[in-house]
Amino acid sequence: MESIKTIFYEEPELDKPILIEGLPGVGNVGKLAAEHLLDQIKATKFAEIVSKHFPPQVMVNDEGLTKLVNNEMYYSKGEGKRPDLIILVGDYQGLTPDGQYELSDHTLHLAKKFGVSMIYTLGGYGIGKMVEKPRVLGAATHKDLVEEMKKRGVVFSKGEPGSGIVGASGLLLGLGKVYGMKAVCLMGETSGYFVDPKGAEVVLRVLADIINVEVDFSALQNKAEQIELITSKIKEIETPQEPKKEDLGYIG
Amino acid sequence: MESIKTIFYEEPELDKPILIEGLPGVGNVGKLAAEHLLDQIKATKFAEIVSKHFPPQVMVNDEGLTKLVNNEMYYSKGEGKRPDLIILVGDYQGLTPDGQYELSDHTLHLAKKFGVSMIYTLGGYGIGKMVEKPRVLGAATHKDLVEEMKKRGVVFSKGEPGSGIVGASGLLLGLGKVYGMKAVCLMGETSGYFVDPKGAEVVLRVLADIINVEVDFSALQNKAEQIELITSKIKEIETPQEPKKEDLGYIG
Amino acid sequence: MESIKTIFYEEPELDKPILIEGLPGVGNVGKLAAEHLLDQIKATKFAEIVSKHFPPQVMVNDEGLTKLVNNEMYYSKGEGKRPDLIILVGDYQGLTPDGQYELSDHTLHLAKKFGVSMIYTLGGYGIGKMVEKPRVLGAATHKDLVEEMKKRGVVFSKGEPGSGIVGASGLLLGLGKVYGMKAVCLMGETSGYFVDPKGAEVVLRVLADIINVEVDFSALQNKAEQIELITSKIKEIETPQEPKKEDLGYIG
Amino acid sequence: MESIKTIFYEEPELDKPILIEGLPGVGNVGKLAAEHLLDQIKATKFAEIVSKHFPPQVMVNDEGLTKLVNNEMYYSKGEGKRPDLIILVGDYQGLTPDGQYELSDHTLHLAKKFGVSMIYTLGGYGIGKMVEKPRVLGAATHKDLVEEMKKRGVVFSKGEPGSGIVGASGLLLGLGKVYGMKAVCLMGETSGYFVDPKGAEVVLRVLADIINVEVDFSALQNKAEQIELITSKIKEIETPQEPKKEDLGYIG
Repeated sequence: MESIKTIFYEEPELDKPILIEGLPGVGNVGKLAAEHLLDQIKATKFAEIVSKHFPPQVMVNDEGLTKLVNNEMYYSKGEGKRPDLIILVGDYQGLTPDGQYELSDHTLHLAKKFGVSMIYTLGGYGIGKMVEKPRVLGAATHKDLVEEMKKRGVVFSKGEPGSGIVGASGLLLGLGKVYGMKAVCLMGETSGYFVDPKGAEVVLRVLADIINVEVDFSALQNKAEQIELITSKIKEIETPQEPKKEDLGYIG
Repeated sequence: MESIKTIFYEEPELDKPILIEGLPGVGNVGKLAAEHLLDQIKATKFAEIVSKHFPPQVMVNDEGLTKLVNNEMYYSKGEGKRPDLIILVGDYQGLTPDGQYELSDHTLHLAKKFGVSMIYTLGGYGIGKMVEKPRVLGAATHKDLVEEMKKRGVVFSKGEPGSGIVGASGLLLGLGKVYGMKAVCLMGETSGYFVDPKGAEVVLRVLADIINVEVDFSALQNKAEQIELITSKIKEIETPQEPKKEDLGYIG
Repeated sequence: MESIKTIFYEEPELDKPILIEGLPGVGNVGKLAAEHLLDQIKATKFAEIVSKHFPPQVMVNDEGLTKLVNNEMYYSKGEGKRPDLIILVGDYQGLTPDGQYELSDHTLHLAKKFGVSMIYTLGGYGIGKMVEKPRVLGAATHKDLVEEMKKRGVVFSKGEPGSGIVGASGLLLGLGKVYGMKAVCLMGETSGYFVDPKGAEVVLRVLADIINVEVDFSALQNKAEQIELITSKIKEIETPQEPKKEDLGYIG
Repeated sequence: MESIKTIFYEEPELDKPILIEGLPGVGNVGKLAAEHLLDQIKATKFAEIVSKHFPPQVMVNDEGLTKLVNNEMYYSKGEGKRPDLIILVGDYQGLTPDGQYELSDHTLHLAKKFGVSMIYTLGGYGIGKMVEKPRVLGAATHKDLVEEMKKRGVVFSKGEPGSGIVGASGLLLGLGKVYGMKAVCLMGETSGYFVDPKGAEVVLRVLADIINVEVDFSALQNKAEQIELITSKIKEIETPQEPKKEDLGYIG
């Protein structure tokens, strides 16, 4: 059995497509952002990637049907100022360092085949505490990209992220450079404790602007509100408080 | 040394055999069910699978003889409405994700060779608490199988199993589809804390009906009673109780 | 780099040699026994096995010289009733299941080349408590070997070892059978908490008798006494006791 | 994707170069020493090693630019009594035993190509407590090297390091011998709790003397002072003390 197997549904003809990666990670920020983008544009699944580097697992959908865990590639044809896009989403990243390298290399190999020369990877930047107004932090393969991103409000801050970028969102930049590609990683600040649609929104706002896509964020904002409701309840339970007079009825 | 090695004792001619998998897993439900089925029908071991993906271990039997840990394949010729069967049992599943994929792929490769196009995988669905009347939950590769199983009393319930199906019982469905096979996973509810013959019984009742095998469940029921005896004793010890008057003599 | 590399110092001509394995394991019983045997007979190192499956480590000897961790093979020519021997000792066993299989397979491949058809593996059987008079437990590939060993006082006891035999001492039997070899595993009872020369002695007594080697056990017995001294001191410290009158002066 | 990939910027012509290894390890002693040496001599990066055996990670520099984690090789042409040098530094060592072996073997393969026959590996020797005047411990592949090092004040002490030398600093000696190379490992004593520039200084003092390089240690000494400041503060916090009269104002 091959380590990685790609099943093609279609081999689209694309014009200098931009690759966008949104796989699971810190706060699932990248995954949420990429999946919300997929909801907002007309995109077609053209390839499925299955691999021994993923967990030995099938997912079961609401109808009781199984699906081997995978990564999926969608394409969306551009229009006017909107470029052609390839969007990579999935259930998992590789389980081992070795698997991570092989999967990212495989992705880049496919990307090259379809003419990709520019990549945006989406992820979360965990800061270990709740964040009111998440910033979008950036990292890039080339200096001109850093400058361009700064103009768009992306923050490049010394020592952030201190430990570098781990996983596909980092490797696609590091290995992508070897493939002669340019790439930017956009990271939305997040506590890292919860799935974070708010982090996803700020990241997708920057990306949507770059790729000239109009995005309706209401679904993502609804999710964010639900999460906030849950987390604020947990906070109430976990933080013992001096009861103030006006609180007595509620807390008690 | 090859990663997986199959030692054939015989290469049976089989007519559209159905593959049944019952390897160790949650509550050993699948293993118990498949082994009880083997006790009830005339079946012949025709292949042994040894692998670097299993633990580096030999089992020692009551006579002091060693056996390398393995998976074993049995066949049973059909009769009347009973189809030919291939039954996969074993000491272990693969230790690593990689090993799991390779072993399931290997199994499917062998299955295809013998003409298998339909698979039933047997497993447990751990719910973390004792269960009086275990249900049989299902998952399948195709919609018509879901409908057929529903008619047989198999439960397809949204969000169960929430995390999908891990191991051979899941992979044989996910990878089997790539091999052009149809497959159903039958999962007996179980606490997951003990080897669970009761979960095995309900799963095997469904399967026996499908493959037209008459099964005497008394041995499995005896085992279930023994387990229940043990677990109820443990429960008594672990659960400190307000002594009721009539209990004093017994508990004290 | 190959996974396993054998460096030969000599390629001895041997007459139906018996392979004896004594690698590190429970209580280091097998290692101690095999190394004591090496001390007692004229044996020549003829091969060194280095491998990526061992830790990435060098040992440093008392002179400050480094040696890559390895396994070593010695041969000893027979005389009269004493057969030719190949003795396998080493610093480590393989670190992973995969490595264990590859190393045992490699050992058997070499053994076959030198004409081995009979193997004795030496190990410890950990029982989790101090043992006054350790038994020697056995397991074998063939029924006649079980009978022969019983006559020599080796114990074959139902359910012991319950979990089978893990590591080289087990695999050389399990895989050896595939190579057409016969094999016995001799396990000395040991607490498993300490290096146990007493367990090694009882195992080596059985083996020495089989291979017609006269062994002076005094060095091994000295080691055992030293270990017992240490462990009895630890016991005193760890076991708080009701002071008896005659003990007061000592314990206080 | 290859397991290890070397990207050459230049293929220098070198005259019997000496290989110096300073990768991360205990107290980062070896890494600090080698990097300080690089700061003090004119050296040119000529090769980058990237590998699946490293973490799947990019580092982000102060300008927001990413770099795939790697190992790097520098060369420095000799002059007078100073020999040509190849210096190996990097972000990480291999994550797995297997990766460690492959990377060290790869390094030796490259080293051989450039004519290396002598290696110095630099590391820390963790002793688990603060050390006022760290010794430099040694280990070597050949007896004459042990004697030479002793003359230079390097300590060869029975039973130190008791567990041998783990990682590249050990493997380059163990595997190097197979490549026909001579090698010395120099280990600076360190607590092992902190990055330790003091341990690095004593190691580099010995090495600088051997390779006839004049080194200004002030930068390393400044770092050491900063670390000592931090650790002494931590010590104050962690060690509850009987307040002496003259301390009351300060501690309280």
